[in-house]
Amino acid sequence: MSDLASRFRASWDEIAPVGRDADSGGYLRYALTAPELRLREWFRAQAERRGMPVSTDGNGNLFAWWGDQNGNPPGDAGQGGAAGGGAVLTGSHLDSVPHGGAYDGPLGIVSAFLAVDELRAAGADPVRPVVVAAFVEEEGARFGVPCLGSRLLTGEIDPDRAAGLRDAAGVSFADALGARPAGADPALSDRFATFVELHVEQGRALVDAGAPVGVASAIWPHGRWRFELRGEGNHAGTTRMADRRDPMLTFAFTVLAANKEARLRGAHATVGRVAVEPNATNAVPSTVTCWLDARAAAPETLRELVEAVHAKAAERARRDGTELTVTPESATPPVAFDAGLTGRLAELLAAPVLPTGAGHDAGVLAARLPTAMLFVRNPTGVSHSPAESATDDDCAAGVVALARVLEELACR
Amino acid sequence: MSDLASRFRASWDEIAPVGRDADSGGYLRYALTAPELRLREWFRAQAERRGMPVSTDGNGNLFAWWGDQNGNPPGDAGQGGAAGGGAVLTGSHLDSVPHGGAYDGPLGIVSAFLAVDELRAAGADPVRPVVVAAFVEEEGARFGVPCLGSRLLTGEIDPDRAAGLRDAAGVSFADALGARPAGADPALSDRFATFVELHVEQGRALVDAGAPVGVASAIWPHGRWRFELRGEGNHAGTTRMADRRDPMLTFAFTVLAANKEARLRGAHATVGRVAVEPNATNAVPSTVTCWLDARAAAPETLRELVEAVHAKAAERARRDGTELTVTPESATPPVAFDAGLTGRLAELLAAPVLPTGAGHDAGVLAARLPTAMLFVRNPTGVSHSPAESATDDDCAAGVVALARVLEELACR
Repeated sequence: MSDLASRFRASWDEIAPVGRDADSGGYLRYALTAPELRLREWFRAQAERRGMPVSTDGNGNLFAWWGDQNGNPPGDAGQGGAAGGGAVLTGSHLDSVPHGGAYDGPLGIVSAFLAVDELRAAGADPVRPVVVAAFVEEEGARFGVPCLGSRLLTGEIDPDRAAGLRDAAGVSFADALGARPAGADPALSDRFATFVELHVEQGRALVDAGAPVGVASAIWPHGRWRFELRGEGNHAGTTRMADRRDPMLTFAFTVLAANKEARLRGAHATVGRVAVEPNATNAVPSTVTCWLDARAAAPETLRELVEAVHAKAAERARRDGTELTVTPESATPPVAFDAGLTGRLAELLAAPVLPTGAGHDAGVLAARLPTAMLFVRNPTGVSHSPAESATDDDCAAGVVALARVLEELACR
Repeated sequence: MSDLASRFRASWDEIAPVGRDADSGGYLRYALTAPELRLREWFRAQAERRGMPVSTDGNGNLFAWWGDQNGNPPGDAGQGGAAGGGAVLTGSHLDSVPHGGAYDGPLGIVSAFLAVDELRAAGADPVRPVVVAAFVEEEGARFGVPCLGSRLLTGEIDPDRAAGLRDAAGVSFADALGARPAGADPALSDRFATFVELHVEQGRALVDAGAPVGVASAIWPHGRWRFELRGEGNHAGTTRMADRRDPMLTFAFTVLAANKEARLRGAHATVGRVAVEPNATNAVPSTVTCWLDARAAAPETLRELVEAVHAKAAERARRDGTELTVTPESATPPVAFDAGLTGRLAELLAAPVLPTGAGHDAGVLAARLPTAMLFVRNPTGVSHSPAESATDDDCAAGVVALARVLEELACR
């Protein structure tokens, strides 16, 4: 193991026990609950150890500064943003989904502090500040809105609405935070010139590419559609097959059609949630409702995918004597990361460029700042699960890559 | 409308409002709750109006006697069972499934009292008693065990176990009954020579046959099998289709396979209940559990059906990378109603003979007494639903048929 991989492991072991569920091996690190508050203390300690003052934005996001908040680079305090355009921001989030993996979020923060160490050890001389961020409630697992911290910072969500969001126990975000969130920072793009988020890959593209680190090109457009199938509830024992109007059949056909149509287009389609009425062993269901989660590289592909699934479901509904209603519940347009920045980093790192189907704080900040993402290889390809993983050597490669990126962006 | 159909309607209208849910139009007549207790009072009033004393068996079942409980026919009190072999029992149940139809149960009881009226009006001279029964908790909708009253009477369930069964509010059957149930009647086959239950058909066989009344040949063997499908929970946005182990796909294929295999065999297969983990819109499920309800005319057909569904599900599980476990949860052997009795009644009524996929008190009593069932045509074929129906004319035809059967069995 390289020296850097050993240092990564030592830092990683400090937080590994925090919020870990002994039964599942997964993490329960919901935003602003005890385990996540412990990680925030750990964040402040890491910053203090490195002489990086921590600021907050009044929304629950933390920023550890190498250099000062007026835009002065390290060692130039008081001379005022020599290179202009604000600081280079990196970092990620500390919170987890229920029984999530260890790497989703914390890897980007641990790597950021270690990248600062690498730059300092190499005698780097930044011309603008480097800032390590911890965004609050990225997963939306506690208050229901993902990327809540970055949405508040960019003004994409109204602070009063955010203040009133409640967790399952009825606690509001404002109460958990201890204050009404401050909302948008009007000088955001002046304070921060660029954002680069390092994240564990949530698929297997880097495994196939044989590369430890990649650069994100875009976040796929995605959405959710509710399929409601109404048939005729009936007695499972006595109703002849020919007399049935069974929505479970239409549902089953729709699940298989979604899978097939997504594969044909290189897109993603998932039916992971279903509600059956009356959901009794001895009753032909009266209604089956399911949700289609669909994502594709291009909006046209996504539209064609959903239309194809809808058409196949409607055709089967006619055969089954059931009625189909499809309702769009959400639609998120594509996020293209800054093409110039992404190309520059991919060339710098000689790393593959890949799209992702998942949302991130980087996707939110991309609307306001030149933004890029680095991914670190995940041998299982699994995420939002205890099976999520990354080797110490790949994590060290991620730190080296991030340090090179920060040097490129902050020292030139 | 015939005079008898009018009298049927008048009697029917007395109970039509009891326990009817205004929104669904279905009935909430759970055993020993207020609506069913009102129907039991109505039962006693019907018996009293006809001079038929009511006895109970200590299990919650009611018996209205034309003739006395020593087996003496009407008018022969004290001379002791001249024709021997006990009484002719008819009737059904008063309770309903949630939001069930009006006819399932009460039709057999209303028809039985009207059949007694028909026999008396025709001057019939029974040589053994005729008894109208109301069995308690036939549906199992309150305490979970169907045919609870007839199972207690025949000793098929231990009275202590029955006493401890609890409803959703925690009330025990013993508390609802007001006493520990008495259990089996050792002289059951001496007290009752025969049981004939009239019931609304729960399918469309009589519609197709163009006959208002049919005779049951058998209750199909049936059972429940739990299919547990384990895959790999994962992120719906980022996990490529090729990398998934999605149990929802195996489940969907199993649903369609069950339907196809049942149709090929003229059998019934239903997947009406499913549980998904974690059942989230943006997650590939980790586990899908579903229940297969399967029924067929012959045990071999049923076995072949379940084996075929199991084999297809297992093959698909291999393709999907999921793991399948199939667990039998219940298996009910076929009930053949008394062949001699069934043939005699079919000939008497010139009625078609048909099997049924549903359980009934008659299926329980068939193990102890010569037993038969009459079905009345149901235009919708739908049961356990507010859409269940029967015309007044068909119900009158059912009364006429039942009166002829009772005359055949009690007067010769």
